[in-house]
Amino acid sequence: MINIGIIGATGYTGVELMRLLAGHSHASIKIVTSRTEQGKPVSELFPALRGIIDLEFSAVDSEELYECDLVFFATPSGTAMTQAPALLDKGIRVIDLSVDFRLRNDQEWTKWYGQEHTCSDLLETAVYGLPEMNRDKIRTAELVANPGCYPTAILLGFLPLLEQGLVDTDSLIADAKSGISGAGRKATMTTQFCESSDAFMAYSAGGHRHLPEILQGLQSVCSDTVGLVFVPHLLPIIRGIHATLYATLKDNTIDLQNVYEQRYKDEPFVDVMSAGSHPNTNSVRGNNFCRLATHLPQEGSTAVILAVEDNLVKGAAGQAVQNMNIMFNLPETTGLLSPALYP
Amino acid sequence: MINIGIIGATGYTGVELMRLLAGHSHASIKIVTSRTEQGKPVSELFPALRGIIDLEFSAVDSEELYECDLVFFATPSGTAMTQAPALLDKGIRVIDLSVDFRLRNDQEWTKWYGQEHTCSDLLETAVYGLPEMNRDKIRTAELVANPGCYPTAILLGFLPLLEQGLVDTDSLIADAKSGISGAGRKATMTTQFCESSDAFMAYSAGGHRHLPEILQGLQSVCSDTVGLVFVPHLLPIIRGIHATLYATLKDNTIDLQNVYEQRYKDEPFVDVMSAGSHPNTNSVRGNNFCRLATHLPQEGSTAVILAVEDNLVKGAAGQAVQNMNIMFNLPETTGLLSPALYP
Amino acid sequence: MINIGIIGATGYTGVELMRLLAGHSHASIKIVTSRTEQGKPVSELFPALRGIIDLEFSAVDSEELYECDLVFFATPSGTAMTQAPALLDKGIRVIDLSVDFRLRNDQEWTKWYGQEHTCSDLLETAVYGLPEMNRDKIRTAELVANPGCYPTAILLGFLPLLEQGLVDTDSLIADAKSGISGAGRKATMTTQFCESSDAFMAYSAGGHRHLPEILQGLQSVCSDTVGLVFVPHLLPIIRGIHATLYATLKDNTIDLQNVYEQRYKDEPFVDVMSAGSHPNTNSVRGNNFCRLATHLPQEGSTAVILAVEDNLVKGAAGQAVQNMNIMFNLPETTGLLSPALYP
Amino acid sequence: MINIGIIGATGYTGVELMRLLAGHSHASIKIVTSRTEQGKPVSELFPALRGIIDLEFSAVDSEELYECDLVFFATPSGTAMTQAPALLDKGIRVIDLSVDFRLRNDQEWTKWYGQEHTCSDLLETAVYGLPEMNRDKIRTAELVANPGCYPTAILLGFLPLLEQGLVDTDSLIADAKSGISGAGRKATMTTQFCESSDAFMAYSAGGHRHLPEILQGLQSVCSDTVGLVFVPHLLPIIRGIHATLYATLKDNTIDLQNVYEQRYKDEPFVDVMSAGSHPNTNSVRGNNFCRLATHLPQEGSTAVILAVEDNLVKGAAGQAVQNMNIMFNLPETTGLLSPALYP
Repeated sequence: MINIGIIGATGYTGVELMRLLAGHSHASIKIVTSRTEQGKPVSELFPALRGIIDLEFSAVDSEELYECDLVFFATPSGTAMTQAPALLDKGIRVIDLSVDFRLRNDQEWTKWYGQEHTCSDLLETAVYGLPEMNRDKIRTAELVANPGCYPTAILLGFLPLLEQGLVDTDSLIADAKSGISGAGRKATMTTQFCESSDAFMAYSAGGHRHLPEILQGLQSVCSDTVGLVFVPHLLPIIRGIHATLYATLKDNTIDLQNVYEQRYKDEPFVDVMSAGSHPNTNSVRGNNFCRLATHLPQEGSTAVILAVEDNLVKGAAGQAVQNMNIMFNLPETTGLLSPALYP
Repeated sequence: MINIGIIGATGYTGVELMRLLAGHSHASIKIVTSRTEQGKPVSELFPALRGIIDLEFSAVDSEELYECDLVFFATPSGTAMTQAPALLDKGIRVIDLSVDFRLRNDQEWTKWYGQEHTCSDLLETAVYGLPEMNRDKIRTAELVANPGCYPTAILLGFLPLLEQGLVDTDSLIADAKSGISGAGRKATMTTQFCESSDAFMAYSAGGHRHLPEILQGLQSVCSDTVGLVFVPHLLPIIRGIHATLYATLKDNTIDLQNVYEQRYKDEPFVDVMSAGSHPNTNSVRGNNFCRLATHLPQEGSTAVILAVEDNLVKGAAGQAVQNMNIMFNLPETTGLLSPALYP
Repeated sequence: MINIGIIGATGYTGVELMRLLAGHSHASIKIVTSRTEQGKPVSELFPALRGIIDLEFSAVDSEELYECDLVFFATPSGTAMTQAPALLDKGIRVIDLSVDFRLRNDQEWTKWYGQEHTCSDLLETAVYGLPEMNRDKIRTAELVANPGCYPTAILLGFLPLLEQGLVDTDSLIADAKSGISGAGRKATMTTQFCESSDAFMAYSAGGHRHLPEILQGLQSVCSDTVGLVFVPHLLPIIRGIHATLYATLKDNTIDLQNVYEQRYKDEPFVDVMSAGSHPNTNSVRGNNFCRLATHLPQEGSTAVILAVEDNLVKGAAGQAVQNMNIMFNLPETTGLLSPALYP
Repeated sequence: MINIGIIGATGYTGVELMRLLAGHSHASIKIVTSRTEQGKPVSELFPALRGIIDLEFSAVDSEELYECDLVFFATPSGTAMTQAPALLDKGIRVIDLSVDFRLRNDQEWTKWYGQEHTCSDLLETAVYGLPEMNRDKIRTAELVANPGCYPTAILLGFLPLLEQGLVDTDSLIADAKSGISGAGRKATMTTQFCESSDAFMAYSAGGHRHLPEILQGLQSVCSDTVGLVFVPHLLPIIRGIHATLYATLKDNTIDLQNVYEQRYKDEPFVDVMSAGSHPNTNSVRGNNFCRLATHLPQEGSTAVILAVEDNLVKGAAGQAVQNMNIMFNLPETTGLLSPALYP
């Protein structure tokens, strides 16, 4: 049994970690912390966990964290970089679901997140936790930077094209749509039911905080300079990301479908659907799959890749559990094979 | 391993059975049938099951059904009563999720369902599969009539009051609201997105087909004549039933909360929440709990009981699996402890 | 032209007043105020009003208010009672959409709203603005207390039965469901999209703040003591209230349908649908109708009345405009005959 | 008064025409027809129109149509081309909201709609009813082909760039998302609530039927060959289209915002929002505006244009009424200035 701590367990990512780990045969949640809900039973804040999770929220600096084998951070930016070093020093492995360790360049980090990075040395040793790119490094990592939701879908969608040099890399377009849980569990006007249901809009079209993470990932697999236009949209669904990706093929006679099928044939959580498919976000509601489909409209030179995932699972907590499985030499799919909740 | 057949696996109840049984440690789905989709892979019709269920739909009269230990009917009314007898004759146990065997009186059945009942003898031997009422009979039953979604929530909500003779039984009111999946997987105008989202209405206020089943259940636990007004409403959510129940207490000084806690203290899937709670349908999304709360507004004589369940789980497929567990002497919660999908 | 001021125009009730008055042939909005948005163009906060309303938010104590013929308060509790007296003193008529003047008894007011009432003398002279009850008094009123959303639907539903003494008045039940805009335009967790969509729950079952207003209204039309159980629910739609009302008939052979048709035959905004109908909230989305239907399930003694309205229109701003029309001797339907937005 | 007939008034476009015309000061609906609902009151099928529209559906070949000044076709493809010629012969003007007269090339029409075009001569004389392109021709047109919902949003978004030759025309991308009412009022599985709510998917990525109409429109305003990738998506909202448009600027130092403001400064229904805006579909819910915003992410060479409209209003019935106003020399905004329904 892996003894688990979760720091920041009151957000959607934290509660999703609890949901997934509750059914994991080789992990046991020992402690969950909260700045604001200390002492309150988890099941009081989250009635969905009544009868499932029998823990109270602990203080964020509880000593019990040091008895864990693995600590997840499901915290706002700036927390993990403060608190992770002490855990790592004691040999406790860390998976950070926040943005703190995702960029290698601390100046870039500061530019986008508006604060100094207090342990930039860890930026170099942290492993970017996208198993489909970095499985081997994850296996032995002490600190895994778990990818963001948009980056996961967009990277999995573009990787085959970039790794094999099949497209012009300077004019990629990612038109992405995210369910509202991507905005986190907090009370804002924009995400009020009356403002966001029966509504749709783009946001941050001028530059979203996930852009540097996506660019870094894309650039890491190709030598040409990557240029990306990334326009996120707020989608009136609870869970789910749909990325519609556009790239100009150098040669439009390649077998696009085959490229994807080959690239992902051994990946347990990447599902290349049959040619001409249109994956629906509801086919991954609550599970860890990323489903992809390839299109070449009008047999032109623009490849269109469709990618869906559950932003809280493959885009966050599920991928974190997948990384945990890799780090602890468990079968990679352990605890992650529940079917999507349909309808 | 229990070998399972599912007849009528293309409806929401059928696909939910597949979802739940896919993660069941002691059951194995051998065959699923469909009148209309014979030969098609299950995962083609239901992409949510890609990588999970690797079966094709078989013909409804496939011989393979006779190799099963247990067959579920998830069919429209009139099918199970035609096809179940042959299975029962060969010693195959049957759980019928349709209405065919829920009423003991065949004339009542004909009155509400508009067709003759072709095997009324089985109405007497069929066991009504509400574990909280009939656990012992279910254990040895050959044929279980799995309760409807409205009846489950309403019976669990009223039972403690009626069993103990605490209320006037002739003026019960059940104001119930059901998610749209309760209408089944078929294309109708009423349940189109543009007609039913951002909308709410009652229906069948003059008399709904589940009324006789509810009355029969209520009457079975008390000697006074039961009178019930049952008004169902169509709720713009996918899954979930919320029943708001009203009954006049004979003595309003009783400890209502205690009555419920005692009645259900050993029930694994009935959750009596603390006094003053308001259970939310989203706290049971995808799982088998029925959550209850008791209220006594203005300390008057009207008890208000709130009950929520997932109509496809505790209200259908989950309860069917619970019944299967009982019938096959498995721990009753096997395969049914996944947390609700929140958010 | 009636010169209009709106105090508190940033809430949903305020913006709805602007929407309705923008198309009113005899009213002209002169000033709208806001505590927090002073100086900002209305159309910046509400892009839906771009090209329609060309005003900026003014300070709440702007002198321009005194140039109006009529001032609407669309403010939280406690504001109108502070600010209305000065306007009334100058002969400016006031329609208050808040709760400040709805109860006649100031102690009852204090009990439910938790603050002292600072001008309890006005509680006696204020006219309760339900045209179907008080049309004549409204005509000459200086101060109209515009009814709440729940009270409007529930009063219109019960009035015919109580006025004519047809039911037992001590055991009325109102099971009401409100769209989320009823909670107002503010950022709360409960009304976040991820918490309230695909979800349903009761709230304040132990006693909701609208209860005394409803009781006062019901009691005003009958001599027997009124007892009411009122259970509100949060419905995942933007606009709309559905009230399902239950009452025990003294004589169930009366022609229930006829009672309603006669009572409301001259009412321009109460629509008694044909017997057996189930009014849908989407049939009044954005317009001022309250639609009613009568049912007598199983020919028993419990009358079931279904009532729908748009909580922001007939339940708030539309009714306020209807009251304005009456006060200023305009045809009562002026500006209020837009069809509902369907689909 | 313009006497109006509506052929095919039971679809969402037809009922929307009735909603808009009910409040039009210079138009009077004389007759509405239906193949399937003949003899039924309009308000029975559409309770939202109770008290507003007092007509019954007539037969589609009713002689009364010949007493109209203007007939709208809101019919499936293939109907208008059969029935319009007889009306035109009698001097009755026609606005066809279907696809029948939108393409100039009958072979292209047959290719996409799978049937022969039976009056291809009218394809040449029909005027494409996008006022922002063809206002003068519309004024005198006998037959107006009212644009589709996707084409309207996409053309209005791209026109300024193409008319002025500012972009490479061979690699345009339109990533468009449509509310579900765009699929029409009919019972299909895809648009069932349980299938389409809390869900999102692309469709027809390989080639959608609106593509030739869009290409024809774009091509008509520039001399270089236009290449467009158009990917539509099904958005879980009732009304609204959001088009996210991408084009490569020849010179990224132009003042993009100014180009749009100048182009549309006299257009009553095109709203160029301030630079950096993100128009929301809910800001046009129920009204005739198309709102646009311009972006130049990372100061690169890809212009991103955001366009929203209500697919049933500016994308269908509202634009048809706008065309009617132009044809009959009324102020163009007559009957079309209702604010959007927000929230």
